[in-house]
Amino acid sequence: MKPEARYELLYWPLPFRGCFVSYLFAYRNIPLIEITDYQEVERLRGLPPAEQAVPFMGPPTLRDRQTGLSLSQMPAIVLYVAPELDLMPQSPSDIATAMKTLMDCNDILMEICRYNGSMMWSRETWPEFRSQRLPNWLGILEESLLRGFFGKETPNFADIGIYALLGNLIRCLPELESDVLDSAPKTHALCQRIGTEPSLASLVASQEARYGKLYCGGQIEQSIREMLRLDAD
Amino acid sequence: MKPEARYELLYWPLPFRGCFVSYLFAYRNIPLIEITDYQEVERLRGLPPAEQAVPFMGPPTLRDRQTGLSLSQMPAIVLYVAPELDLMPQSPSDIATAMKTLMDCNDILMEICRYNGSMMWSRETWPEFRSQRLPNWLGILEESLLRGFFGKETPNFADIGIYALLGNLIRCLPELESDVLDSAPKTHALCQRIGTEPSLASLVASQEARYGKLYCGGQIEQSIREMLRLDAD
Repeated sequence: MKPEARYELLYWPLPFRGCFVSYLFAYRNIPLIEITDYQEVERLRGLPPAEQAVPFMGPPTLRDRQTGLSLSQMPAIVLYVAPELDLMPQSPSDIATAMKTLMDCNDILMEICRYNGSMMWSRETWPEFRSQRLPNWLGILEESLLRGFFGKETPNFADIGIYALLGNLIRCLPELESDVLDSAPKTHALCQRIGTEPSLASLVASQEARYGKLYCGGQIEQSIREMLRLDAD
Repeated sequence: MKPEARYELLYWPLPFRGCFVSYLFAYRNIPLIEITDYQEVERLRGLPPAEQAVPFMGPPTLRDRQTGLSLSQMPAIVLYVAPELDLMPQSPSDIATAMKTLMDCNDILMEICRYNGSMMWSRETWPEFRSQRLPNWLGILEESLLRGFFGKETPNFADIGIYALLGNLIRCLPELESDVLDSAPKTHALCQRIGTEPSLASLVASQEARYGKLYCGGQIEQSIREMLRLDAD
């Protein structure tokens, strides 16, 4: 019998930012209940803060059924569950560099989706992003790996965060794989290693079956895909 | 004799996001070296990642002279220094809710400055922000205080984060104080309490003397101030 899940994750019906949490559980093969009904997420998000399980602006949120605690904010959720999943580094400096890496991933995610779709990509902005800003970010990740901020022998939440960012990016937008290979080859190799963990690969396969290559959704995803088409022409 | 500072903070010559770190030190009256020379920040930011003390995209960065570790990403820096400053909560759930609060503050800061000035405010966007989104955020903070995510008897880094966000906002943009009072009166009162700590008040006074009411700087600050003028008309 499968053990009963202790944690519930609420997120939109697509991997995107939610997979920074769900991949931690999948990597350790620990059950996680995922609530991804769009109407339900929208309803809970729209409640007055006093009626929310945790006062929050946007998902993901996590509920710990054992303690009753609910949390929002992806980095806070990761910090909370990582020790339980044996994905927390030991020393204060390793914890800090792992959190730094996770925040870099979060920033890169925000830039790609133009701050949750606040703006669309255009030919005035995308080429500069793809030719300069994205390689800069990838160079920062690659140098962080070389310095041991992630990619060490024992994986921690930063490694899974890197995979959540880049593994999912490459899976959904394969046109960008060459960008990652060019600017962050060792980080790319790490993602491939992490992704071979069978329990994680199984979740990713089930997400692919369910959502296809849906990335961040909405008009902003259309805008990214339009830019990639124009780049290819 | 003043004790020699263990930590160095690199940030632009204005309080804004840097004060999430510097106020922690000031609150505990622990020395911190602040490097705020614009040209120097710009130069270090433009170095290739391999030549940076920490591979980073934007300041603040912190250097620990004792261990040699350099860090970027404000929430990672706070996580690293909070235990040394006796501003780290004890339990995993208190750490998580404090980090959730700090991330909320970080998000609110990013929304006010339109993602580091990626967009300007206009009469199409600002009124909705001020009348709905900002009160929503403030309501989330107020409810978080009621639930003990911050504002408990022993202050931690979340309390200082709230003060760094709202204390500095109200000081620089006093037109917004009524918004905070209306939607988050207890949080406003907390900020006033935190701000009376003499060593912190002294840093804030020296920042006011040096920078006046400079908030986030640049065109985006002009845009915020234009909106506030139009609101007042």
